[in-house]
Amino acid sequence: MQPVMTIDELHRFLDTDFPQIHTDGRVFTVTEVQAGVVSMRFDPNERHLRPGGTVSGPALFTLADVTAYAAVLAHIGPVALAVTTNLNINFLRLPKPTATTCTCRILKLGKRLAVIEASIFQEDEDELIAHATATYSIPPREI
Amino acid sequence: MQPVMTIDELHRFLDTDFPQIHTDGRVFTVTEVQAGVVSMRFDPNERHLRPGGTVSGPALFTLADVTAYAAVLAHIGPVALAVTTNLNINFLRLPKPTATTCTCRILKLGKRLAVIEASIFQEDEDELIAHATATYSIPPREI
Amino acid sequence: MQPVMTIDELHRFLDTDFPQIHTDGRVFTVTEVQAGVVSMRFDPNERHLRPGGTVSGPALFTLADVTAYAAVLAHIGPVALAVTTNLNINFLRLPKPTATTCTCRILKLGKRLAVIEASIFQEDEDELIAHATATYSIPPREI
Amino acid sequence: MQPVMTIDELHRFLDTDFPQIHTDGRVFTVTEVQAGVVSMRFDPNERHLRPGGTVSGPALFTLADVTAYAAVLAHIGPVALAVTTNLNINFLRLPKPTATTCTCRILKLGKRLAVIEASIFQEDEDELIAHATATYSIPPREI
Repeated sequence: MQPVMTIDELHRFLDTDFPQIHTDGRVFTVTEVQAGVVSMRFDPNERHLRPGGTVSGPALFTLADVTAYAAVLAHIGPVALAVTTNLNINFLRLPKPTATTCTCRILKLGKRLAVIEASIFQEDEDELIAHATATYSIPPREI
Repeated sequence: MQPVMTIDELHRFLDTDFPQIHTDGRVFTVTEVQAGVVSMRFDPNERHLRPGGTVSGPALFTLADVTAYAAVLAHIGPVALAVTTNLNINFLRLPKPTATTCTCRILKLGKRLAVIEASIFQEDEDELIAHATATYSIPPREI
Repeated sequence: MQPVMTIDELHRFLDTDFPQIHTDGRVFTVTEVQAGVVSMRFDPNERHLRPGGTVSGPALFTLADVTAYAAVLAHIGPVALAVTTNLNINFLRLPKPTATTCTCRILKLGKRLAVIEASIFQEDEDELIAHATATYSIPPREI
Repeated sequence: MQPVMTIDELHRFLDTDFPQIHTDGRVFTVTEVQAGVVSMRFDPNERHLRPGGTVSGPALFTLADVTAYAAVLAHIGPVALAVTTNLNINFLRLPKPTATTCTCRILKLGKRLAVIEASIFQEDEDELIAHATATYSIPPREI
């Protein structure tokens, strides 16, 4: 399972075709593309925080979903239109209001479904703050 | 299982203790509080839409999470601090860019965990656009 | 969404094509087929019980999976070969060692995916003992 | 996070307190106990197979649940009574009728909840055949 897009190509595609992920500023940055793996860094701003200085659940959900979507795209190319059909997220620890990374691993890349595992952590911590698995429906592709 | 808060009390509590749900405008309104059931209406604005005129996945996740949280609060009272520990969401159909309702049903309200089912639909439609189950950890309560 | 198989037709199909569900005796019985809904009764025997006299988690998982599978079959006909791709189950209360019913409701019956909600309860009880959602991949059908 | 039980201690505890996992023969064997990780091997027999020679979904669910339970026990000790509250499983590929391994990683071991990730694979294969996350409720412990 080899990626067919680079970090730069993913950024260009997301900027053009999915600009709404930048509605709150450029908070999502692809940091890693490898065989079966894509990582993104999320720099939360005021909109993503909660009283007490934690990152909101919807912000972590969005991070998992955007990174998993980028992982699918990186391996099937920019044409296809994948749609999230299921996302299961476990919130494990209260995050600090700081840079957060999501590393997605492709568990399955089938003709019709892709299943992705997402691990969310913060820079100087050993332990995950959240963990998700997501399924994407992949439209029929020309060959 | 009887609610201990009214719609007005829920609105006052959310306004005071959880004002960030109104960051994008007053898009969430509690519309129903009954034994074991709470519903909310969500009026999406430009921020919640996607090209093609659909409501974003993170917006539906937020709707499910906020409504389920309100359902827990409505039945344990405004003091407790419940935390989402798990949320599993199935996206079933592409929503239209219009008013969306989430009806939450409490499946279990234990001492330590509450489990909620969320059905998300749009006004003139029979079929669900999304369905979720969520678990909340309930802190120890004084008796 | 109308069923295309009766209770008797479902029983005959399961007996012929899926006899392994009877490995532990005839413990699964279809009790209801309606538009979008199929129910099964499960009569647990010694194999399905746990010390303390409760029904095992794997037995409840099997009940949810078999009933959801029957619900898909009942609405697409006996030819198709549906495969479980995801099952999320919440265990809500300890079951008693007695007859248990699973009612499945079809949330979506698409060309490629079916999503089912399963509610598991016991006869004289108001409250659910378990709740699941499951996704089935449906193979391409001739039309 | 260090284990407090060895492989032998886990086997003795499971034999004594959870003998029902051996109802179909001694098909489950703990093969690894490390910091935060426990693995089990599952040797399916006729009962666990399906026509076409694949391992059944309920058998894989049981493997994930038993291994995750052993992982919790190995790290909190044999006294505690943990209960599965949620299990989400993705079935990724059809398994062959052969030895199957489940490796569980503890994502969180809190006072009240443990969250476990389970990867299920077969010996000579790179790719997972199933992946699960499970939550266990941990009863109050004396300190």
